[in-house]
Amino acid sequence: QNRARLVISCPDKPGIVAAVTSFLYEQDANIVESSQYSTDPEGGTFFLRIEFDCPNIAERKQEIENGFTSIAQSFQMNWRLHLHNDIKRIAIFVSKEEHCLLELLWEWQAGELLADIALVISNHEHMRNSVESLGIPYYCIPVTKENKSEAEQKQLSLLKEYQVDTIVLARYMQILSPNFVAEFPSRIINIHHSFLPAFVGARPYERAYERGVKLIGATSHYVTDDLDEGPIIEQDVARVDHRHHPEDLKRIGRIIEKTVLSRALKWHLEDRVIIYGNKTIVFH
Amino acid sequence: QNRARLVISCPDKPGIVAAVTSFLYEQDANIVESSQYSTDPEGGTFFLRIEFDCPNIAERKQEIENGFTSIAQSFQMNWRLHLHNDIKRIAIFVSKEEHCLLELLWEWQAGELLADIALVISNHEHMRNSVESLGIPYYCIPVTKENKSEAEQKQLSLLKEYQVDTIVLARYMQILSPNFVAEFPSRIINIHHSFLPAFVGARPYERAYERGVKLIGATSHYVTDDLDEGPIIEQDVARVDHRHHPEDLKRIGRIIEKTVLSRALKWHLEDRVIIYGNKTIVFH
Amino acid sequence: QNRARLVISCPDKPGIVAAVTSFLYEQDANIVESSQYSTDPEGGTFFLRIEFDCPNIAERKQEIENGFTSIAQSFQMNWRLHLHNDIKRIAIFVSKEEHCLLELLWEWQAGELLADIALVISNHEHMRNSVESLGIPYYCIPVTKENKSEAEQKQLSLLKEYQVDTIVLARYMQILSPNFVAEFPSRIINIHHSFLPAFVGARPYERAYERGVKLIGATSHYVTDDLDEGPIIEQDVARVDHRHHPEDLKRIGRIIEKTVLSRALKWHLEDRVIIYGNKTIVFH
Amino acid sequence: QNRARLVISCPDKPGIVAAVTSFLYEQDANIVESSQYSTDPEGGTFFLRIEFDCPNIAERKQEIENGFTSIAQSFQMNWRLHLHNDIKRIAIFVSKEEHCLLELLWEWQAGELLADIALVISNHEHMRNSVESLGIPYYCIPVTKENKSEAEQKQLSLLKEYQVDTIVLARYMQILSPNFVAEFPSRIINIHHSFLPAFVGARPYERAYERGVKLIGATSHYVTDDLDEGPIIEQDVARVDHRHHPEDLKRIGRIIEKTVLSRALKWHLEDRVIIYGNKTIVFH
Repeated sequence: QNRARLVISCPDKPGIVAAVTSFLYEQDANIVESSQYSTDPEGGTFFLRIEFDCPNIAERKQEIENGFTSIAQSFQMNWRLHLHNDIKRIAIFVSKEEHCLLELLWEWQAGELLADIALVISNHEHMRNSVESLGIPYYCIPVTKENKSEAEQKQLSLLKEYQVDTIVLARYMQILSPNFVAEFPSRIINIHHSFLPAFVGARPYERAYERGVKLIGATSHYVTDDLDEGPIIEQDVARVDHRHHPEDLKRIGRIIEKTVLSRALKWHLEDRVIIYGNKTIVFH
Repeated sequence: QNRARLVISCPDKPGIVAAVTSFLYEQDANIVESSQYSTDPEGGTFFLRIEFDCPNIAERKQEIENGFTSIAQSFQMNWRLHLHNDIKRIAIFVSKEEHCLLELLWEWQAGELLADIALVISNHEHMRNSVESLGIPYYCIPVTKENKSEAEQKQLSLLKEYQVDTIVLARYMQILSPNFVAEFPSRIINIHHSFLPAFVGARPYERAYERGVKLIGATSHYVTDDLDEGPIIEQDVARVDHRHHPEDLKRIGRIIEKTVLSRALKWHLEDRVIIYGNKTIVFH
Repeated sequence: QNRARLVISCPDKPGIVAAVTSFLYEQDANIVESSQYSTDPEGGTFFLRIEFDCPNIAERKQEIENGFTSIAQSFQMNWRLHLHNDIKRIAIFVSKEEHCLLELLWEWQAGELLADIALVISNHEHMRNSVESLGIPYYCIPVTKENKSEAEQKQLSLLKEYQVDTIVLARYMQILSPNFVAEFPSRIINIHHSFLPAFVGARPYERAYERGVKLIGATSHYVTDDLDEGPIIEQDVARVDHRHHPEDLKRIGRIIEKTVLSRALKWHLEDRVIIYGNKTIVFH
Repeated sequence: QNRARLVISCPDKPGIVAAVTSFLYEQDANIVESSQYSTDPEGGTFFLRIEFDCPNIAERKQEIENGFTSIAQSFQMNWRLHLHNDIKRIAIFVSKEEHCLLELLWEWQAGELLADIALVISNHEHMRNSVESLGIPYYCIPVTKENKSEAEQKQLSLLKEYQVDTIVLARYMQILSPNFVAEFPSRIINIHHSFLPAFVGARPYERAYERGVKLIGATSHYVTDDLDEGPIIEQDVARVDHRHHPEDLKRIGRIIEKTVLSRALKWHLEDRVIIYGNKTIVFH
């Protein structure tokens, strides 16, 4: 395929779209999708994502990037050019709850996940067969208070070895250290089993039950050093009532969790998510 | 109409439904709707709401209540018998935002609100015409830090004079004192402009904007002394995205607020809401 | 477990609930859930579903049924008593699309499907491994215009051999003959890939695309001789827009299809669905 | 305000966005929102909507239009330039059901409807006071089989007199003649009280009740000569169950109807809806 996408952010001022699209036209590119957003047309930040087809894009990538540099500099752009065929390599981390992992595996098999699943890392053994039967490496690295630092080193070394771009925490119940997070800035996606910022922290379904809420939710967000406080990518909810015990909330919640995580991950994989401060811009 | 409803709570044990329905059968009552819930069939609390038709129920109410007393005592029941024609008298409190009040007035005109709107109380003047033109008394009682206690006395005196059963806080932005709340236990319904327990307190839409949530919500709950902590009756949400500024969230939120408040109030008016601890059982 | 459920329909008149619950009380039963509906309290049809716990229900089932007969006769009841432990045996029929089958298999593994999956029947081979690896028999019976009658005979013979109670058409793309349907009245559940009655028949996603609808849906219904006209159990929808081609609608639709079918099947398995005319009463 | 929007459709080929945005840049315009869609990047139709700020746009409109003509011709564009301050003048047609009209009036009062309500036309008298009290002219034109043609002539003459741009059928229960529709091509918006294409024609709620659907809906569409077959702008649904009679469906449906109509109208008023064949592209 000859498809690529250009993702740009820069101070907003007149002429950005004209300059970018004129450049692409000169490269024989045909724009197939374009999304933009400005935090403030007067002095704010401008975000642009353009998907385009361009003959021989793979061969010409370096040349196009070189040509774009002067435009990028004149507008003080942060920018990235991604080829559609450069599939991101992801690692999925999982603990005991398997529904999110299974959903991602199923979508991957169905060809709906634009990613290479490089490996699965768990602190438990029980999903080994399901994962390895698909030809995906599975590593069990138990984590305790004592060995946490060592365990993270093992994980990091595997992530390096497998050239992982993005980490998906598919109900992985260990808190990552700041050192670990710093190695994958804006590239770790978590699913939290509540409608954040309600029920930050542990046992959200039990606390939702205690509070007597009428809707429960799930939140997918980028991981930062502040637990459950990173930029939110996607959220959704489901209706519950007085008859539901915590076990029912968990059962209902699983469907929301896997759906929300899957949507967030897909948008990330297509570079549709841009982090701005502690928030996200999602071009979908 | 000959319709009535019986609302019961008591320790759960075998035989409750049999005793109640046999009694109603002996009174020539025909059950048209019945809902029940037990927190635990083994030693929990049992809740029952039965709607029934019974000839000459208005004349026979006292007699039926007397007859039911011995059953009620033997099962240690809390119970109430309501005639369908005994419409609840409500007071609507409102501040500057008018959408919730307007929704309730419109539904009342359309015959969809099973209530007498006894009066409207506001700390502002601007809704006087809309309310009075419908023949509903309107009282403007400004509230300041200094006169708060005095203002509440005026409100309580009006509520007494108008024989008000239930108070609806339709975006009334003053916090009621514990003394005031104690006069209407479990009979003050508020609409909070967030998906509680997220964004308890002031300026929820601004804080939702800051946090970058992808859904905003509204919550209708009974008022207790703990601000925004009372039993939740109903909640709902709407989707938002990065393009929405706080003003947009408020605009989108207004539709959720009025819808959620209207649903919660209707269930309350039909005695479908039972408070249990700090939670509600809603038989809808 | 000592749990059972009693499902009743009969002409509505006073005293039904009193008679049934008094009888259950005499059997030492404790009611844990009860739902009722009357098409018209004056001369309509009354439906009742009661879940109860009763000591030694398995041993006493016959005795309780005998005892109930006189009540049942006096009210002209249609009724069934089901033990919770009498799990229904189901057959899943599938063609090429596998998502609905996979969802049911996953829920079954997670212990969330109150059914024994007796066998899977397909007109294709490709799901054999996934099914057999779970220890479930898989039969591939190709169907053509010429062999249809013979193929149905094979299917019926397998269904008999495996003592199947309920058939689930999980995107099975062959139309069943009236003879076949007559063998499983009100016990064949289909998932149709549109929001019925819109797009009855073939290629609903293509036709939804042509019409330019802004929501697509799925419908689970009992199969009757009239194609796509049987009693609807459950429906749901998802939002789409002008950017979605038929392939996108199919992808989005798969999530709705599997969710709707799963919900409908679960309600059926717990005897929460009662057919009345060409409609369903669902006690959930 | 200096805001305007440019809406374009033309055969897709490379260079369109570059040409348009370069032209706008030369006019000192700052793009604040841009949406585009191509039915097929290879030889399909391309749609573009750009909102921009431009100093003295009101004075310079003619000059800018002249300047754009050569670009427009070279790409064979259909195009329109709208000033944000050129508010569309609308006529609301209503029959007996008043909820949609009331919603639009309320949003108009709240400043949320970017339109001048030029007049209201009804075949009944009962809404006169509500409308006239807001200073909006109200015309009652009864319609019968006999006087239909004459009545439409009166309507058309009023629409001309009041310089109406768009007609909103807010539950107007008369079918407009092809002659009438031809006078306002793609400028008559209807709300149909069903989830089209289900229940085309009369009495949709009664038919939804008969069919036993589990969701009901509403559809806003442009009016064409084929009844209920025009391009769909927006749809939504609400959940119902076996307890709801046709009157309940109507009550629940009213909320969907007014919400869907309001959304569709707002998008139309901001030129976010483009008709393509019998479908719409909605840039929201």
